[in-house]
Amino acid sequence: MQRYFVEADNWQGDKVFIQGEDVHHIGRVMRMLPNDEIICNHPSGNAARCQIVSVEKEAVHCRVVEWLEENVELPIEITLVQSLGKGDKLETVVQKGTELGASRFIPYQAERSVVKWDKKKADKKISRLEKIAKEASEQCHRNKVPEIEALHGLDKLLQTSKQYTWKLFAHEDEAKRDEYKSLSNLVGRMEPGESLLAVIGPEGGFSASEVLKLSEAGFHSVRLGPRILRMETAPLYLLASISYHLEELR
Amino acid sequence: MQRYFVEADNWQGDKVFIQGEDVHHIGRVMRMLPNDEIICNHPSGNAARCQIVSVEKEAVHCRVVEWLEENVELPIEITLVQSLGKGDKLETVVQKGTELGASRFIPYQAERSVVKWDKKKADKKISRLEKIAKEASEQCHRNKVPEIEALHGLDKLLQTSKQYTWKLFAHEDEAKRDEYKSLSNLVGRMEPGESLLAVIGPEGGFSASEVLKLSEAGFHSVRLGPRILRMETAPLYLLASISYHLEELR
Repeated sequence: MQRYFVEADNWQGDKVFIQGEDVHHIGRVMRMLPNDEIICNHPSGNAARCQIVSVEKEAVHCRVVEWLEENVELPIEITLVQSLGKGDKLETVVQKGTELGASRFIPYQAERSVVKWDKKKADKKISRLEKIAKEASEQCHRNKVPEIEALHGLDKLLQTSKQYTWKLFAHEDEAKRDEYKSLSNLVGRMEPGESLLAVIGPEGGFSASEVLKLSEAGFHSVRLGPRILRMETAPLYLLASISYHLEELR
Repeated sequence: MQRYFVEADNWQGDKVFIQGEDVHHIGRVMRMLPNDEIICNHPSGNAARCQIVSVEKEAVHCRVVEWLEENVELPIEITLVQSLGKGDKLETVVQKGTELGASRFIPYQAERSVVKWDKKKADKKISRLEKIAKEASEQCHRNKVPEIEALHGLDKLLQTSKQYTWKLFAHEDEAKRDEYKSLSNLVGRMEPGESLLAVIGPEGGFSASEVLKLSEAGFHSVRLGPRILRMETAPLYLLASISYHLEELR
């Protein structure tokens, strides 16, 4: 069944109305009619099976048939801090990272990021990433759409990190060392309801000063297997491993 | 240090010569000169630190300085059977799957694959995938370049599967069920040196007849976490989870 995320203001008792781009999708792309059913997700994470009452030009009106008991959210809340990189790497990470269960994405201006975002570019990029996160959430039946935060530099990142239970950064040098188990030791200690802030470095890796400051702020350095991963593959390894440990193994 | 895969015939005692596209890369792109060092990988999986002796138009001649003791191959040999899909999905899977340690890729003409390959298209696609696998292996410092096999249909796949220790297919219906631990139960029983054949379905999922025949042939049906993954994300989840279990956790 098709799934749409509907903002809180558009829920009134057992009535739900859909506005914006989804109206076009329901009426024109899916060609749905009154009495057809869809799933509407409330921002709280709850979802309801709904029946379409009317499809108008500017809105689709629906009625809640039943609230669904479903939860496919990861047991811990993961915020992925992704360094800016060339091309559409960030788009790929947001799309696949949403499928793999991330709760939030923070674009990070790393010291060695080749790409820089100015204010205008940042606004445009973030709107685009929000759209990708919403679409990916609908496709993979997430209960919540991951948030996209504003661009962070190192100082802001260290400030933000204070709110998290666990903090880590993926360090290329770890992959070259024999000292493994750094990631599994951390994940093994995580409990449902806790939060994790995970930082992925840029193509050239973290600078020595970034490594120092992250370590001083309590970030754990981990390796993601023994092979060197691209900056857009590393977060997928991390999310898949955590899902595997907490949702498949435990 | 830059890394190149050199075919077996081009190793003679402590002399190595490089031909083909890599000559252009060494001479023109990297602008390397005699006495510069590179890593050459032998198809056996061994690697040597080599010194460049001369850079000519058609060949680069090198001398082995020392053989390296390094192995970043997964402890089990994974063959990924990927259903044909739209766009550049297969390219993405081969690139990222190489980084994540797959040994071999088999393109699979699933019953519900929207894309079909004829003979001419298949030859071209496979050459392209071989190039991607080689480049990704060099970038992520693999010891071996994964092989790309010819397109398989179901009958050929069932035939091929007889050579493997473990066989599984990722089934979307499993994600919707509560019966989890199917993947971790399998991975937990795998031992170094064993082999795994893993089949990833197309966008529309496996047909009922495919599910039946795979099951009858001893393939285990597994879920890859509770969320629905795209066909190009599923193999990355699988490879990352196996690497995590066997290389980071165990």
